[in-house]
Amino acid sequence: MNFASDNTAPISPEILHAIERASHGHAGSYGGDELTKNLAARLRDIFETDLSIYPVGTGTAANALALATLVHPYGAVICAEEAHIATDECGAPEFYMGGAKLITLPSSDGRISPMQVEAAMARAIDGGIHHVMPEAVSITQATEWGTVYGVDEIAGIGEASRRRGLHLHMDGARFANALVSLGASPAEMSWKAGIDVLSFGATKNGAMAAEAVIFFNPALAAGFERRRKRAGQLWSKMRFLSAQLLGYLENDLWLRNAGQANAMAAALAEGLTALPGVRLVQKVQANELFVAMPDELIEALHGEGAMFYRWIDVADEPNPVIRLVTSFATRREDVDMFLALARRHSAVLARQ
Amino acid sequence: MNFASDNTAPISPEILHAIERASHGHAGSYGGDELTKNLAARLRDIFETDLSIYPVGTGTAANALALATLVHPYGAVICAEEAHIATDECGAPEFYMGGAKLITLPSSDGRISPMQVEAAMARAIDGGIHHVMPEAVSITQATEWGTVYGVDEIAGIGEASRRRGLHLHMDGARFANALVSLGASPAEMSWKAGIDVLSFGATKNGAMAAEAVIFFNPALAAGFERRRKRAGQLWSKMRFLSAQLLGYLENDLWLRNAGQANAMAAALAEGLTALPGVRLVQKVQANELFVAMPDELIEALHGEGAMFYRWIDVADEPNPVIRLVTSFATRREDVDMFLALARRHSAVLARQ
Amino acid sequence: MNFASDNTAPISPEILHAIERASHGHAGSYGGDELTKNLAARLRDIFETDLSIYPVGTGTAANALALATLVHPYGAVICAEEAHIATDECGAPEFYMGGAKLITLPSSDGRISPMQVEAAMARAIDGGIHHVMPEAVSITQATEWGTVYGVDEIAGIGEASRRRGLHLHMDGARFANALVSLGASPAEMSWKAGIDVLSFGATKNGAMAAEAVIFFNPALAAGFERRRKRAGQLWSKMRFLSAQLLGYLENDLWLRNAGQANAMAAALAEGLTALPGVRLVQKVQANELFVAMPDELIEALHGEGAMFYRWIDVADEPNPVIRLVTSFATRREDVDMFLALARRHSAVLARQ
Amino acid sequence: MNFASDNTAPISPEILHAIERASHGHAGSYGGDELTKNLAARLRDIFETDLSIYPVGTGTAANALALATLVHPYGAVICAEEAHIATDECGAPEFYMGGAKLITLPSSDGRISPMQVEAAMARAIDGGIHHVMPEAVSITQATEWGTVYGVDEIAGIGEASRRRGLHLHMDGARFANALVSLGASPAEMSWKAGIDVLSFGATKNGAMAAEAVIFFNPALAAGFERRRKRAGQLWSKMRFLSAQLLGYLENDLWLRNAGQANAMAAALAEGLTALPGVRLVQKVQANELFVAMPDELIEALHGEGAMFYRWIDVADEPNPVIRLVTSFATRREDVDMFLALARRHSAVLARQ
Repeated sequence: MNFASDNTAPISPEILHAIERASHGHAGSYGGDELTKNLAARLRDIFETDLSIYPVGTGTAANALALATLVHPYGAVICAEEAHIATDECGAPEFYMGGAKLITLPSSDGRISPMQVEAAMARAIDGGIHHVMPEAVSITQATEWGTVYGVDEIAGIGEASRRRGLHLHMDGARFANALVSLGASPAEMSWKAGIDVLSFGATKNGAMAAEAVIFFNPALAAGFERRRKRAGQLWSKMRFLSAQLLGYLENDLWLRNAGQANAMAAALAEGLTALPGVRLVQKVQANELFVAMPDELIEALHGEGAMFYRWIDVADEPNPVIRLVTSFATRREDVDMFLALARRHSAVLARQ
Repeated sequence: MNFASDNTAPISPEILHAIERASHGHAGSYGGDELTKNLAARLRDIFETDLSIYPVGTGTAANALALATLVHPYGAVICAEEAHIATDECGAPEFYMGGAKLITLPSSDGRISPMQVEAAMARAIDGGIHHVMPEAVSITQATEWGTVYGVDEIAGIGEASRRRGLHLHMDGARFANALVSLGASPAEMSWKAGIDVLSFGATKNGAMAAEAVIFFNPALAAGFERRRKRAGQLWSKMRFLSAQLLGYLENDLWLRNAGQANAMAAALAEGLTALPGVRLVQKVQANELFVAMPDELIEALHGEGAMFYRWIDVADEPNPVIRLVTSFATRREDVDMFLALARRHSAVLARQ
Repeated sequence: MNFASDNTAPISPEILHAIERASHGHAGSYGGDELTKNLAARLRDIFETDLSIYPVGTGTAANALALATLVHPYGAVICAEEAHIATDECGAPEFYMGGAKLITLPSSDGRISPMQVEAAMARAIDGGIHHVMPEAVSITQATEWGTVYGVDEIAGIGEASRRRGLHLHMDGARFANALVSLGASPAEMSWKAGIDVLSFGATKNGAMAAEAVIFFNPALAAGFERRRKRAGQLWSKMRFLSAQLLGYLENDLWLRNAGQANAMAAALAEGLTALPGVRLVQKVQANELFVAMPDELIEALHGEGAMFYRWIDVADEPNPVIRLVTSFATRREDVDMFLALARRHSAVLARQ
Repeated sequence: MNFASDNTAPISPEILHAIERASHGHAGSYGGDELTKNLAARLRDIFETDLSIYPVGTGTAANALALATLVHPYGAVICAEEAHIATDECGAPEFYMGGAKLITLPSSDGRISPMQVEAAMARAIDGGIHHVMPEAVSITQATEWGTVYGVDEIAGIGEASRRRGLHLHMDGARFANALVSLGASPAEMSWKAGIDVLSFGATKNGAMAAEAVIFFNPALAAGFERRRKRAGQLWSKMRFLSAQLLGYLENDLWLRNAGQANAMAAALAEGLTALPGVRLVQKVQANELFVAMPDELIEALHGEGAMFYRWIDVADEPNPVIRLVTSFATRREDVDMFLALARRHSAVLARQ
């Protein structure tokens, strides 16, 4: 019963198998191999458009490299205050961007609105040359609160961004989870809605260590190869990054994995909310749950060996909040066992 | 017959197997797993000392992170002008160090001397505050010219560095090849000779993508974890970096792999130098050969499908120079076939 | 009637005269002159302690260089969200610090509290290596809202900082105005209260372009000279920076200038608050006033040629807010004329 | 007899007077003043073209900001190995450019050739994405060896740069000295010869602290204002930078000052070369002399209180080398006294 994070999971067997298949004979290094070429073609099919794609090893690298490409060192990126790029990457964006700033906007569920973007831009312009100039917006899909932007909502931010001359980046560490949740096509949830650059995540959804930076506007990708190289993100044996991503996309593995994770999250949500004093503090739209519950229940579940994190307190919620994350590797029996334990301890507590 | 580079090779089967073994069940992310813990213990055994060790995905990242830890942004690193950090990392050290400079010293075979280090330091001091202040020396072992520093030579640089208050870094992308070549112990070739920080390479010698930054002086490692994180080099599923490195070290795989590569290089060297007009422009001490030969012979070998690079011209050498690199995956029959072709074409050319 | 800013003022005549006196004959460059030596001695007297002092040309440079010295690139600085370093320096701190972050705290009057510092530190520690590590606190004295920290309040932040291992920086762009306001000694308002590094401003209070970075803990100043040089902040004819600062300190000019500015601000405050519908939205403790007044009155004053800026709206205040800044160059007659106009137009508006 | 540098001189009286004249009444800050506006118009006249001009306080800032505007962080600047930007700015260019590199070319007299530029570019392209990409060339006029590029020579580099897609920067710390030496027009020696951006120096030739970055291609200046601000180079009382530069240009003061400095250098050269064992190691084309002379003579002159620096040894020159720098403040009697001393001591030494 490990719900600590989706990155505590192993490698999805199909992806491990793809690595094995790729490990035969010599191949061109630094991306000069067949798999890397095939990957680009495969992604063009899936996204139904021309695009430039660059595999890297981590999501932080994908985000930081993408943003550094969009923003001058004297610029800024507009994002939610809970954004992973703002809170969980130890300043990677600022480092890669050469000191450009993140302008963080308050958000109750991880999502920001076109109006907020417009207002932030107006404030920045008002500050004149004493203030950094926003050049990009970054949104996370699914968000850090486990919620999902609707396609129309993304398009709204896309329009506001275009109107204001801002590039639009999507941190898609959980892109597949959101996609399955919406039932949208990859194109609809990205470039058709105004996304210029996508951090396309695979690690949290089954890969070993593989993400891709995808530019829907190839002109923006100028210089990206050198940025990746000097970031130490250009794998010499690149074929093993590409193999992971190809395995991830083959036979819709990415969608099936995300579907499993989302279904397990929904099952947890359903089971938990039936218990007294237990409440979801955010909608469960992907593979993360934020659940308020009595402290004693949390203690009891931890005592049973269930693994998950306590989260930050939520305003107007008397109980503490925990985060549960599911993944492709979460099995129905893990969920059932966890719910059974929760029910049992909840009943015990009720009797006290 | 692929002698283009040691990074065109696949994954060493034992390492691939280690990845597979690691891919079961959940494990703590970001290094909170058992394998990562075991790796540190294993390396302490091998190096016979306490040390701090941080796995990363690429050699460029290992070098750039190590140097950024040793040098202030207003500092400098002394190295050979052929150093990989100076010529082949697209400015990664400068990026990671925040603009600190590399002070490059001329070298005929990739090695620099204690006297050169002393002289460079004297020049820098002479420049006063208008000049960047050297704070570290970086040497490559085996060097970019396929040569190897003797243990005493490293110790000489170590002493000069200590005398001048400089930290000493070793780019060990081909550490194992040098170690096998010298028959030295890991401790002798590193901290006992004055190395403070080592980029311990595995990728070129059989890993998929795995290097480690090893601090023999743990005090120097302060802040390293955050540097690695913000560099996008902290793998969430870290166990798969550690698994590679453990597999690499298990049953002396790393030494066996390096031994194979070195032996194949020696065999190539022996076979080629028997041919008229063919000359090694550097001693062959590890797994790289730099060979001057008639242009027609190069053309003929390329025409037969042999893969290798032409290199830069060498002073006083009328013939062009090629580079041949062997790896753990180089088989005796590849070498034999290449030599047979070289002999055949050499004979044909001689007759013309 | 120019109340737009204290930097619209000319050079204080005594300082101009000091520049003239310094412009005779040759003098050592880059600080190797007598005036620069004298300046250090003079400041040691004034601050009653040993210190390291480095003149620079602008306040932004002073702040950014000071912070870069205190914080690693993977670190952070805690400050108020209105801090000049956060809002008005176009990312200079982030640039100089190599991408380190500012952690901004809400504040109703420009001041932050020891409790806020502790809480920010606790949150950062909670974020682990995924979060930048605060290494310094920066406070502005007088604040951007024209308020002044009491000596005890600074000492409270000093204690909290020391307890948490944080360095404490003071942005003293209006140090003299605050000093005069409190009637404290320079030592009391700085190192005795726990300040490690001070951006000692002179430009806003009469200099042409001269600030000084003062380290009360000389150990922190290691490397500062090179940082200043590579920032392009080391004047070759340094004597003219030092001459300005010496002229500023001579015969208590700095205190007299600040006294005049503060007195004029107080007079404005007194006169304006007597008018109906006019309200100070912050205490006037130095040389800045933030005044809510009817829109028509603002228009009328602007129409009369008075120069000042509209400011951001203030919560729960129906009227718009303006900022008035006085300086050493503000004369009593400017204040009287402005108040007379305000009274006249206020009366006219009342009759409508 | 101070020949240590041209920055040991005081402020040219006319420029000091311009500062005084500017110090009356209030004026818009951050460049919103009349003088700054006038300065731009004046420079457009002088350079006979439209241009963007940004005053800053130091030459290092001018160079570093200019280069940062021309080059991406993953780029490089081609320059002479003696270039001030490479040797005397403590890494300022690398800092401002975000880690981009300088590619230094050997030069016997401070000048580089179009052929060298072409060859450097070819080498860089050969290195592919593993090597930084040159995006600019920087030349110094007059050079660090006191020599001067002819207008045709600049044009040659301009053509090579344009052909290779490189921007061309001129470090004009001693622009006026070179201009007077060549008898060329400002336009001829800059944009007409292919210069895109000029660091227009005034400090060494009479200003207190004033340089200007001039863009002949205004499109290149995008973002420059924010770069300057975040560099801490935007003076709040900008009028005093502009006043210096206006005073510098008024009544051809800049040309007269440079003429005086050059004439004094020529007089020194003529007088010194008449002495036995004394030899110019570089042509004297501006206001710097590099003179080889017997060690005893150097000692004797230093003993008499003459101020100048010993320089680095020059190949094939048995005697040590000194550098003498003249300025607008060098008087004929200083030169005569120095020459008289040199003659006297030379005669004494000859008799020994």
